[in-house]
Amino acid sequence: MSRASADAVATLSTPERLQARVDACNTITAADYASYVPFIVDGHAVGALQPWFADALVAACGSDALERSSDGAVRTSASLTTPDARSAAIAPGLRELHDDGVITGWRDEIFPCTMGYGREPLLRVERAAASLLGVRAFGVHVNGFVTLANGERELWVAKRAKDKQTFPGKLDHLVAGGLPDGMAPSVCVVKECGEEASVPESLAKQAKPVGVVSYAMNYNGCCKRDVLFCYDLELPEDFVPVPDDGEVESFERFAVADVIERMATTEDFKPNCCLVIIDFCVRHGYLTPDEAGYIQLVQSLRLAND
Amino acid sequence: MSRASADAVATLSTPERLQARVDACNTITAADYASYVPFIVDGHAVGALQPWFADALVAACGSDALERSSDGAVRTSASLTTPDARSAAIAPGLRELHDDGVITGWRDEIFPCTMGYGREPLLRVERAAASLLGVRAFGVHVNGFVTLANGERELWVAKRAKDKQTFPGKLDHLVAGGLPDGMAPSVCVVKECGEEASVPESLAKQAKPVGVVSYAMNYNGCCKRDVLFCYDLELPEDFVPVPDDGEVESFERFAVADVIERMATTEDFKPNCCLVIIDFCVRHGYLTPDEAGYIQLVQSLRLAND
Repeated sequence: MSRASADAVATLSTPERLQARVDACNTITAADYASYVPFIVDGHAVGALQPWFADALVAACGSDALERSSDGAVRTSASLTTPDARSAAIAPGLRELHDDGVITGWRDEIFPCTMGYGREPLLRVERAAASLLGVRAFGVHVNGFVTLANGERELWVAKRAKDKQTFPGKLDHLVAGGLPDGMAPSVCVVKECGEEASVPESLAKQAKPVGVVSYAMNYNGCCKRDVLFCYDLELPEDFVPVPDDGEVESFERFAVADVIERMATTEDFKPNCCLVIIDFCVRHGYLTPDEAGYIQLVQSLRLAND
Repeated sequence: MSRASADAVATLSTPERLQARVDACNTITAADYASYVPFIVDGHAVGALQPWFADALVAACGSDALERSSDGAVRTSASLTTPDARSAAIAPGLRELHDDGVITGWRDEIFPCTMGYGREPLLRVERAAASLLGVRAFGVHVNGFVTLANGERELWVAKRAKDKQTFPGKLDHLVAGGLPDGMAPSVCVVKECGEEASVPESLAKQAKPVGVVSYAMNYNGCCKRDVLFCYDLELPEDFVPVPDDGEVESFERFAVADVIERMATTEDFKPNCCLVIIDFCVRHGYLTPDEAGYIQLVQSLRLAND
């Protein structure tokens, strides 16, 4: 960084410095949007495909499963009239794309493609295909925190395993995960708390829903549109989370002020965790409208009409 | 209400029932937007005028103060090169419009017209003219609440005086007010707490900034675009607010669940207070993403890119 730009950064307010972390989650340009091929299931535009993937998907799934409209959109075949029929027709093609190295990873986890959270799935696919299909995804993120005797708060921060497929080594929430097909967020939180951090059920059930953040990210070219349900979980001071499923290397507690500084000055945190932690900081008064850039930061935590 | 529609309402989730209160704050239609005449100050489009008011404003202020562009937009005269010069040139016209009954009310309070919160005002006008000018306004709203011994929370609710010019008799926050020219939100909160509810300064300073709500309302035809800074103020159980400036008839405490039910089933609350109270309910876990309509409700509390 040049001396001049370092000086410019130094004069920014805390909300202005944090804005870069939110902006890093909203990287789909107008040109990206214009280039995506609509993925239409049962008449509903649920996804957005990169042109090369649209071609690969149709080739792998075959014309019995998918059709191209005259405008290039990819549509599930009209003969497939139920979610089960559509899911079964497309599954072999997705597996083939995985075998060919196009779809990386395979979680053996069902991902529902819907027109909106809580609506009936129109199609179910393997979760590893969700990003490439550009379908809206839903997850839960839990801010685990401790209130010290002096009233100060500390956040539990996870460090992702170095061999994790996505964002290896990045800092993460106590608990976070994609919402499985048909599972309520409150149930998912308790399940993930147990699996990811060995939080006992009685404690995990105290996690409190506190809102939503959402973003639209260009993720390796994919149209990744996520809605994250945010939870606060206040933990006893003597509770120590234990990694349980090999995805987390370690847990550590940081003062909230230190987390803010780390987010403002580094890219150490997994990008979407920054949104959820900034939302925590807003709700708990760690940021103030007296500082420049507050409104923009707060309003950028959620997409409108999503 | 017909029996059929009463049954339909009864099956809605709590977030779905509260959505009507948020929607009531966002009532500017595309046709409204298309009809507004831009109000341009020093080259910046800061306001939106109804066509009849654009004509009245130009007639009252005169051609030394305001000009019409070829597209009909109202612009401050290019010869007025400073905020003070523009403010002085327009003031007599606004006073005339008040004397003629066009601008109702007069608060003797300066309202800054800016391109965004925290930016230098381009023009200063009497606050009573802000709605008709369609300029973005900023305010502070304080959720005053008590946590009972059993952990339940109650909100202090004000009842507006019956002779108040706007929203007489409606239920309101403990404290709320427009942000005066050049005053920081944290300072405004302490000032309004003292003026409106006799909250001592030491207590008022504990009010915690917790976010922002925003909306765009068709208010008697005006383009009313407001950004409200939300504060939480936890009060001792024995504290009783006292109306101090005649604008509030009485204060009463209600269980949060009762406030939610009252908002869901009546229009008793001042519309924009509902946004701030719903935000309180979201942040404190009184609503849950397990219920239908949660995402839409939460995302509708703030306008994007405002």
